[in-house]
Amino acid sequence: MLTRFILIQTSHAGNVGGAARALKVMGFDDLVLVAPRWANVLRREETIQRASGANDVLDKTRVVDTLDEALDGISHLCATAMTPRDFGPPTRAPRAHFESLMGVGVDRELVPRPEGVAFLFGSERFGMRNEDVYRCHACLSIPTAPNFGSLNLAAAVQLIAYEWRQTLGGFDLPPVVPERPAADAQSLAGMLQHLEQALVAIDFLDPAAPKKLMPRLNQLFNRAVPTPEEIHILRGVAKAMIKAADQAKR
Amino acid sequence: MLTRFILIQTSHAGNVGGAARALKVMGFDDLVLVAPRWANVLRREETIQRASGANDVLDKTRVVDTLDEALDGISHLCATAMTPRDFGPPTRAPRAHFESLMGVGVDRELVPRPEGVAFLFGSERFGMRNEDVYRCHACLSIPTAPNFGSLNLAAAVQLIAYEWRQTLGGFDLPPVVPERPAADAQSLAGMLQHLEQALVAIDFLDPAAPKKLMPRLNQLFNRAVPTPEEIHILRGVAKAMIKAADQAKR
Repeated sequence: MLTRFILIQTSHAGNVGGAARALKVMGFDDLVLVAPRWANVLRREETIQRASGANDVLDKTRVVDTLDEALDGISHLCATAMTPRDFGPPTRAPRAHFESLMGVGVDRELVPRPEGVAFLFGSERFGMRNEDVYRCHACLSIPTAPNFGSLNLAAAVQLIAYEWRQTLGGFDLPPVVPERPAADAQSLAGMLQHLEQALVAIDFLDPAAPKKLMPRLNQLFNRAVPTPEEIHILRGVAKAMIKAADQAKR
Repeated sequence: MLTRFILIQTSHAGNVGGAARALKVMGFDDLVLVAPRWANVLRREETIQRASGANDVLDKTRVVDTLDEALDGISHLCATAMTPRDFGPPTRAPRAHFESLMGVGVDRELVPRPEGVAFLFGSERFGMRNEDVYRCHACLSIPTAPNFGSLNLAAAVQLIAYEWRQTLGGFDLPPVVPERPAADAQSLAGMLQHLEQALVAIDFLDPAAPKKLMPRLNQLFNRAVPTPEEIHILRGVAKAMIKAADQAKR
């Protein structure tokens, strides 16, 4: 689905670079700047530095004068702002809104899936103008601490890009270490017997008053779910304990 | 729950400030720097600038020499890194891991809730050392685009802080405009009749060949679910159309 990020009257070059990087890392590349403070913002050093390799996104980024010029192909507009006091689109948390926009439990006859979605971000100092918010279908509000809602612009772009990507199905995790095999209970029991001998040998465990030491260790190792390789290591430790005790007693 | 963010060998002051802001905005305040590149990083201009008001978090931030010194009170360690090739903790997406750590469907007898959780972030250039990863209970991997996984450090802190806060129950959205009342079908029908008269008056609608204009408009207004106030506005428009048409025909 066409997904666009629109920054309106952005004043910090670093945030433009940070936004480009945030988009790319979540697999998006459509960034439009409406009336940025610096006409040459895409070529400023701080922009390129903070983009940190997302140069292809910067190369594609359009700079336009008005919001109208940024909206071709977009059928659903999300403001990132509070709903104005008087009236305006409903305020929603991003995850809940994206789920209802794309997700389960929505009747597609009643609510067709959008053709293209744009996320609008206001300036660092003043946020979005009401007249821009009035054009939107929803106001996204990222839930923040009650006493400190000051989210950095690039951080807000990152969070929205992440949540939207998650809703679109996400990305796979990188290939992971193969499933860890669990040793069977028989080999765990064998290791524990070996360990018990060793604990007796080093005079830690008194066979006449064992208390509950071995059941406790059994529980500990049950929770750890050791692999066969780890059982092998633990038996090696037990063997070395017994050997050391034998030598000490000679 | 005790929640700590630990940055290991961080080299960019801006990222320390950005991390402090990212924590505060999600309601956290426990930041520890292990062997940062600049000993005075908490007092550098770029740090304070990027913290943008999260000075109380910077004031509380501890700078220590070793990871050990950062782990008091923490019982569950999450690396933000790939699992080393040879072995190590399981790699999980943050949301899935947090849900299983805190969430539904987990038997608390088998898996007790942690006492304190720390999130470990490696240096900007080299990520986390294997020996630090080996100490962790899980590797968190933020799902990123296959061809560009280069997430900014402060952005990664922001995403993890956000996901963890969501798992802990999140924050409420700010107070929202009162529920929008829907006009009833009777007043919608009355408005449509008024509009129909107006469309006839301005010679847009031919009563002899109405086609499906009014049912189409009825469907459009059904989807828009107008409020009583909006019905009032639309009737005002219809009235003015009729008046204009009357004057034109005089």
